[in-house]
Amino acid sequence: MEHLEDYLPFWEKLSERHRQELESSAQIRRFPSGEVLHGGAEDCVGLLLVIEGRLRVYTTSEEGRELTLFRLFERDLCLFSASCIVNSIRFDVTIAAERETCAFHIPAAVYKKLMAESAAVAGYTNELMASRFSEVMWLMDQILYQKMDVRLAALLVEEADLADSEDLHLTHEELANHLGSAREVITRLLKYFQEEGVVSLARGRIRLTDRPRLEQIAAPGLR
Amino acid sequence: MEHLEDYLPFWEKLSERHRQELESSAQIRRFPSGEVLHGGAEDCVGLLLVIEGRLRVYTTSEEGRELTLFRLFERDLCLFSASCIVNSIRFDVTIAAERETCAFHIPAAVYKKLMAESAAVAGYTNELMASRFSEVMWLMDQILYQKMDVRLAALLVEEADLADSEDLHLTHEELANHLGSAREVITRLLKYFQEEGVVSLARGRIRLTDRPRLEQIAAPGLR
Repeated sequence: MEHLEDYLPFWEKLSERHRQELESSAQIRRFPSGEVLHGGAEDCVGLLLVIEGRLRVYTTSEEGRELTLFRLFERDLCLFSASCIVNSIRFDVTIAAERETCAFHIPAAVYKKLMAESAAVAGYTNELMASRFSEVMWLMDQILYQKMDVRLAALLVEEADLADSEDLHLTHEELANHLGSAREVITRLLKYFQEEGVVSLARGRIRLTDRPRLEQIAAPGLR
Repeated sequence: MEHLEDYLPFWEKLSERHRQELESSAQIRRFPSGEVLHGGAEDCVGLLLVIEGRLRVYTTSEEGRELTLFRLFERDLCLFSASCIVNSIRFDVTIAAERETCAFHIPAAVYKKLMAESAAVAGYTNELMASRFSEVMWLMDQILYQKMDVRLAALLVEEADLADSEDLHLTHEELANHLGSAREVITRLLKYFQEEGVVSLARGRIRLTDRPRLEQIAAPGLR
């Protein structure tokens, strides 16, 4: 049995009444891999606090191109599934379960009230916002100043770490969606990587065959 | 004489003690046009609340390329000159006065204490952070999905609005810095715009000669 108090760092600063409000309203929910939990700013489903699994937060352009902003792992709290709690959030993201995910669901109205009454909760929310903001700033820097080969190499290394395997079951389309790029661009780069001997390609699968070299490509400043 | 209470929306929710702390520590400061007020994360000068003037907040790449994130006008509060108040801010920005600017300076420690004790102040800080986050998300969308000609046209229209003049005293270098681009790219595009008859170029000056057409270029979806 999971307990909210183990997941919320501000728990001990809450009053007894606030704790009871949280405990009586939060529910554990399960999302199958691939499920879209949230899409668009008008959709205020509430906060999600990940117990197990992985969520992907991404934007989609008018032409349907996706860009992964960040992922949420165990103990991460997702603000953007409840963007109505902060009025000034004026952008749309989509949140999808990248694998089967189990999470506490906290209703937006309950959290909003808590934030208005507790400086500790509002301060924690601030830190969360700043943390996601920092990830997006890093990403923008990557997009502006890093070439796509560097970004693709970094993504392949990251995916291998997450999967704990050199065998990645990812399509070129999925990689393109992570990077905000087009499938054709990714296919061309992967073929280049294959010719360089750093990956080998098969249908729906990419194997890292020279990881040290891939890590070098991913960190050109350290070469 | 300027009063803090006219500038801080959370003023009436503060206790008398908090108001006194703010009033006794805040000072009015003046920055000449061009002065860099803040650079780098370790530099925690305090919060700036603009009374008059204009601040530019931008990032700089390792190669020295700049990108304007947003600008701060009258009544805007600048969090990033006091990034130490929120631990999770892990990115560096530079803040410079784009014209002579007069601002309240609030020491970081005073604001941080206020935020920890008042949910109203923490909530307001959240809204500010979300608002800047939204501007950066819009910018990233522009960078990823809008072509540079569209972004340059939009910038020229915005600058003409700010200057309230069709005559812009801006160098190609300055425009490139706003857009995170290289001077050569901007010079080439401006020459293209000149050939199209929408601007005329002279040393250190750009005149908008066909503003409706420039607005069309800036908003390709509305064509």
